[in-house]
Amino acid sequence: MAQTDEKSGGVTAVRAEKLRRLVERILTAAGVPAADAATVAEVLVEADLRGVESHGTTRIAGYVSMIRTGLLNPKPGVQVVRDLPSTAMLEGDQAFGIVVAKRAMEMAIDKARRAGIAAVTARNVTHTGMIGFYTMMAARAGMIGLAMNNGPAILPPFGGKTPTMATNPFSVAFPAASEQPIVLDMATSIVAGGKLRLAAKKGLPIPGGWALDRHGVPTTDPSEAIFHGFIQWAGGYKGFGLATMVEVLGGVLSGGLFGRDVPPMKDFGKDPLVTSAFYLAINIENFMPLAEFGARVDRLIEHVKSSERAKGTDEIFVAGEIEFRKKAQRLQGGIPLSDVVHRELQGLAAEYGVPFDL
Amino acid sequence: MAQTDEKSGGVTAVRAEKLRRLVERILTAAGVPAADAATVAEVLVEADLRGVESHGTTRIAGYVSMIRTGLLNPKPGVQVVRDLPSTAMLEGDQAFGIVVAKRAMEMAIDKARRAGIAAVTARNVTHTGMIGFYTMMAARAGMIGLAMNNGPAILPPFGGKTPTMATNPFSVAFPAASEQPIVLDMATSIVAGGKLRLAAKKGLPIPGGWALDRHGVPTTDPSEAIFHGFIQWAGGYKGFGLATMVEVLGGVLSGGLFGRDVPPMKDFGKDPLVTSAFYLAINIENFMPLAEFGARVDRLIEHVKSSERAKGTDEIFVAGEIEFRKKAQRLQGGIPLSDVVHRELQGLAAEYGVPFDL
Repeated sequence: MAQTDEKSGGVTAVRAEKLRRLVERILTAAGVPAADAATVAEVLVEADLRGVESHGTTRIAGYVSMIRTGLLNPKPGVQVVRDLPSTAMLEGDQAFGIVVAKRAMEMAIDKARRAGIAAVTARNVTHTGMIGFYTMMAARAGMIGLAMNNGPAILPPFGGKTPTMATNPFSVAFPAASEQPIVLDMATSIVAGGKLRLAAKKGLPIPGGWALDRHGVPTTDPSEAIFHGFIQWAGGYKGFGLATMVEVLGGVLSGGLFGRDVPPMKDFGKDPLVTSAFYLAINIENFMPLAEFGARVDRLIEHVKSSERAKGTDEIFVAGEIEFRKKAQRLQGGIPLSDVVHRELQGLAAEYGVPFDL
Repeated sequence: MAQTDEKSGGVTAVRAEKLRRLVERILTAAGVPAADAATVAEVLVEADLRGVESHGTTRIAGYVSMIRTGLLNPKPGVQVVRDLPSTAMLEGDQAFGIVVAKRAMEMAIDKARRAGIAAVTARNVTHTGMIGFYTMMAARAGMIGLAMNNGPAILPPFGGKTPTMATNPFSVAFPAASEQPIVLDMATSIVAGGKLRLAAKKGLPIPGGWALDRHGVPTTDPSEAIFHGFIQWAGGYKGFGLATMVEVLGGVLSGGLFGRDVPPMKDFGKDPLVTSAFYLAINIENFMPLAEFGARVDRLIEHVKSSERAKGTDEIFVAGEIEFRKKAQRLQGGIPLSDVVHRELQGLAAEYGVPFDL
């Protein structure tokens, strides 16, 4: 039975395992092969567990909509178009980005085990979800993982007004020994587009400084920003520079679409969504024993955590730490699911004749 | 003969070639082997040409001072401590960071030509200069280059007050076909420390928002920021996350010092300076013909450049473009050398009995 969180009206706490099973069943009923449905459910629920709700099960309605309109190919012919000892290129055939991303990182890890370092690109897939998932796969395998992907032309270059790139996320993960891995997972924009969409869905305003309206003036209205305006880059020209790196490694090197050639997307689930990605794995054992590396990462984490705190700061965090803590809480107390997502899942379950057991 | 730039008092325009030769002679006289002196002069003058004066010949006085006090080893025993097909590790023996960085990227390029991708770390060196120099080496070799290095514990973690990391620069370069390469070269702090030191040297205030004073309050006094306060991270916790990546790849993976174990540095040239670095090269031909990649990068640059401009923007730039333009101007019209640097070089030339011909 789901428990209602009394502190936050309109939210229901659900068990991760039940949510995962429900998503899996909905996707299978929508025509997704069982193994792929399990992968998508795993990655989305992991995002919900880590507090990255913008990349969690809020996406299911959009995914199903894309399957129905043919924008997402549930049974794609994913091809390895080039396969060398340290590199490979995948053609995604508009598959679930999540499914191809997991496969690409598995290949990179596998190749890096022999070659030391390996990179795999994946082009022409749909939404890739929380890319920290894939870099954490590398960290679990005792490697350093990097992941990044381009996407719809929705943000202008720094100083411009013509949509040219996506919020181009970048992630890197490092295994520790006794600590949790360090996991950086960030949009190169000041916020991820998903956070605007979630605010719009909840009917909440966004902080000033996140976005510009159609006239290039700051706005707190997420819908204005999503449908007519632009998100800003993190750190101005620096964020745009990092987004350019992601565009080249993800879009150019992969043989995929890039820049203004990627279809823009205003409405997730209704508009075309094409992304391309770059995954890299580095075998730590090429440099030092994994245990030694982990102990050194532990020590760095200790240096960060034990810093004297600035005024107004209660605790200092390393990248990914807040998310690991949230996951532990949510594995215990459940994932707080918004009424909107709850209703979406309920509706899909009814449509597909799947038991709605949350 | 040097020409005085009438528009900016206190600045002399000097020919790059003459400046390079002078720096080379001073360093050779200071006990640096000829080939290394040439490398250091080349990298510093390239920075001056590109308008990155904070990493140019303003550094010479500090380098010479470090040689004299034993903080920089002009005749180091640099060792390849580990050498595998796609990776290597260098021990720098407090060498010129510039000399070891160039060697490390040469090794990475060489290995990537056979292995597809290669990474070389370099630990325990001094100042590494403008790291875009090394990624541009990869771009000239038809590869993608990445470079980053850690350094003195001078910035606190996001939300903290204890100096724990350096401004941890990051660079990536991509070759184009008819366009200049895309070259991102950025500190993960909101500005490079060198820009504060240059402002202090020139007696100029810094923009608000660049730094905090000893109490954690914004200041426009570069000396207060350098000697008692802190520079801020680019994009807040995102910049700190990127700096953490640089700290792990540069400091942890290399077997070098990292975090608070790196000696802090307040006074460049007088305080110990230990940095460690990570260099990566990706052979584009593993993915597609270099000409095709270059044409695709050209197209991306065209997309960026042709964006409609936001109000107040005269031109939109890709990363590195302003620097290539400045270099072209300065190769023609000379490098504007500040009176301070001019006097420093004149003094060193006199001390070492080297002809001062600028």
